[in-house]
Amino acid sequence: MISTTFTYRDALNFVSEERIRQSAPAVRAAFEQLNSRTGRGNDFLGWLDLPSQHDADMLMEIQAVTKKVSANSDVAVVIGIGGSYLGTRAVTEALQHHFSACRPTGAPKLLYAGNSISEDYLHDLLEVLDEVEYSLIVISKSGTTTEPALAFRVLKEHCENKYGKTTAAQRIFCITDANRGALRQLATNEGYTTFVIPDDVGGRYSVLSPVGLLPIAVAGFDIEKLLKGADEMRKVITQETDPEKNIAMQYAVLRYLLYQDRKTTELMVAYEPRLFYFIEWYKQLFGESEGKENKGIFPAGAIFSTDLHSLGQYIQEGERNLFETVISVKNAHHHVSIPFDKENIDGLNYLQQKSLQEINHTAEEGTRMAHVAGGVPNLRIEMDNISETSLGELIFFFEYTCALSGYMLNINPFNQPGVEAYKKNMFKLLGKPGV
Amino acid sequence: MISTTFTYRDALNFVSEERIRQSAPAVRAAFEQLNSRTGRGNDFLGWLDLPSQHDADMLMEIQAVTKKVSANSDVAVVIGIGGSYLGTRAVTEALQHHFSACRPTGAPKLLYAGNSISEDYLHDLLEVLDEVEYSLIVISKSGTTTEPALAFRVLKEHCENKYGKTTAAQRIFCITDANRGALRQLATNEGYTTFVIPDDVGGRYSVLSPVGLLPIAVAGFDIEKLLKGADEMRKVITQETDPEKNIAMQYAVLRYLLYQDRKTTELMVAYEPRLFYFIEWYKQLFGESEGKENKGIFPAGAIFSTDLHSLGQYIQEGERNLFETVISVKNAHHHVSIPFDKENIDGLNYLQQKSLQEINHTAEEGTRMAHVAGGVPNLRIEMDNISETSLGELIFFFEYTCALSGYMLNINPFNQPGVEAYKKNMFKLLGKPGV
Repeated sequence: MISTTFTYRDALNFVSEERIRQSAPAVRAAFEQLNSRTGRGNDFLGWLDLPSQHDADMLMEIQAVTKKVSANSDVAVVIGIGGSYLGTRAVTEALQHHFSACRPTGAPKLLYAGNSISEDYLHDLLEVLDEVEYSLIVISKSGTTTEPALAFRVLKEHCENKYGKTTAAQRIFCITDANRGALRQLATNEGYTTFVIPDDVGGRYSVLSPVGLLPIAVAGFDIEKLLKGADEMRKVITQETDPEKNIAMQYAVLRYLLYQDRKTTELMVAYEPRLFYFIEWYKQLFGESEGKENKGIFPAGAIFSTDLHSLGQYIQEGERNLFETVISVKNAHHHVSIPFDKENIDGLNYLQQKSLQEINHTAEEGTRMAHVAGGVPNLRIEMDNISETSLGELIFFFEYTCALSGYMLNINPFNQPGVEAYKKNMFKLLGKPGV
Repeated sequence: MISTTFTYRDALNFVSEERIRQSAPAVRAAFEQLNSRTGRGNDFLGWLDLPSQHDADMLMEIQAVTKKVSANSDVAVVIGIGGSYLGTRAVTEALQHHFSACRPTGAPKLLYAGNSISEDYLHDLLEVLDEVEYSLIVISKSGTTTEPALAFRVLKEHCENKYGKTTAAQRIFCITDANRGALRQLATNEGYTTFVIPDDVGGRYSVLSPVGLLPIAVAGFDIEKLLKGADEMRKVITQETDPEKNIAMQYAVLRYLLYQDRKTTELMVAYEPRLFYFIEWYKQLFGESEGKENKGIFPAGAIFSTDLHSLGQYIQEGERNLFETVISVKNAHHHVSIPFDKENIDGLNYLQQKSLQEINHTAEEGTRMAHVAGGVPNLRIEMDNISETSLGELIFFFEYTCALSGYMLNINPFNQPGVEAYKKNMFKLLGKPGV
């Protein structure tokens, strides 16, 4: 049973039911390619099994590390970039207190390093680490990706200076290749505890592997529920063969048809600020999977109603090459009362009997009507609430849809050849040996 | 004297010098319309004078409030949305410690409210405010914009419950219309200290009015330097009449020509994470100014190298409807040494003599080459460092360019008719009296 729903009623002014039906063979072909593991990039389909076939020992080891880090660290620094960064941040920021940075939460706070080359950022992080007890979680398949490798060099030295080499080795955890690579070798030499990034799981599809599971658990969240949510979604969308009933096939078809109509930007929208990094994760997943061969939908994000007072004007009246996909959250976790004011100078007494959540939903409804009338097709994903379970569902839903979409576009959704271009130039300019 | 520079060498493969020269009359016409204040929306040109004609009494009053808030508050809650939110956040996040949320900084921390309708967000904020001493800065021209008005109702009650009505009135500061509106009336009734939003300054152009100046000063930053930087830029770009020498005219022309070539998305990029909100401010400024009459460039943002491992693939090889504008920062404030490692398992010893800032610049250079080769025109804005002065320069540069761009597009850059559409629907659905 899943609670996530998908609706496309507000795209039917732009894409007819007839065209949707005509796309059934194409999406069914993609679905079969994916499930039979015969499509392009099929050596990177390990993510399909992550929700159901996780290793019980690995989960126990994660819980053991979590216990240890919780006991001795105020902060866990997650060192990683791209898929070794965004999945963790997407899930933890969605689940944690909005102001967890300002106050104790009972679990180590996650801070991030190795996701940029900013010297001032790293300097400021070191200042924080002077003041707190911390552990390091280093995530890199090769151990030689420039950003995390540089950050790890600096932080390893700091950690060893602070705690001594032996104790530091108890505070450093590596998630890396099973056998090869610099980080594996270093971990073996130094005796670090390690977890494995499976060979057949690419970075942007890795959040349900130890890459995401370890730091999410350390931050205090229930990774078994996350996996369970993903597995429930997996059962539904990998097994339902009817494109009219399978929500992943529906979403893939709608994106495909809207793109045919030159809707070249998808704006992923949430009305809850803590889904900001979930949308960043979506941007990586789809942008890196689809943006190839001069094709693909540009993934943009927004948090409403914040950005209705920023991008709202453009969405309503700018170029008509946008469509919106709204992630709607049904239930809030908390209630805040709107006070009654007998003077009513602000004129808000008419809202006093409503909940903010209800008003937020009304803003969503009013926006949907306005944007559709303005020429922006709307798709809608609804989740019951923001929880480990619902995020697990959503993660697998997006991963699977992204793969279907890539096959429908006739590209390989699992490679990223274009990411190498800047690195090659950079290595040459830096004088890297052997380049 | 300004230190900001603008270069377009890496767009010349896409836009010829010839076409740039041919655009001189169009940009000169826009420049004259703007400077003579005869163009569309000329009742909203007060921002042109903010850097030079600020009121000395107003600045003194801001310093007095800053002193008071610093003395009695750990936190100042800024209640505002859109232009009453983004300018402050753009400047303060660019200037403050990357982890200022986690640690004492000697000045009140700014937290934000009224920029969404999330019930959980407001609940979490109230939890923080139970634990700290705080003041409220409420920013709204009318006082009836739903998001900030709702948040203020809730926070005013919290503040009065915590401090008593009399003391609370000493902790609440309003920035609003000089004479009219609900917030003005409330402030008069309750005896709050107030500052004025000038009639001829729109929200997205208001950061150098009290809207931005008060909270930026409260956060501990030097608003006179900010204004000075803006004024230096103002002198240069409002007075240089030669389009080949005026960097604002150059940037406006390049955007105009790239848009003619159906480069419909501008990706504003920085290699410093703390410019994230500056880019959000840019997105509002340009999106809300240009996105009209089914025209305008869609403003998107990215922080590199973070997003090279996310959007990078798309930029390199996706749809060719993008151009990039890079905000490059010459000097870091701090130095972090890269340790030498005699084992060199990660192979990074070749970088050990370099600064991270130098490596960051090399990433920028490698990326520029790769993206230009991949078909993405690149524009480049360089600032000396991140400081009040340089941010002031940049703010006025973008504001002025945006106005020129709007006139070249033949739209009114100072209105936002499309923002009303969702509000109208929402009020109707909510049953607002009189709607």
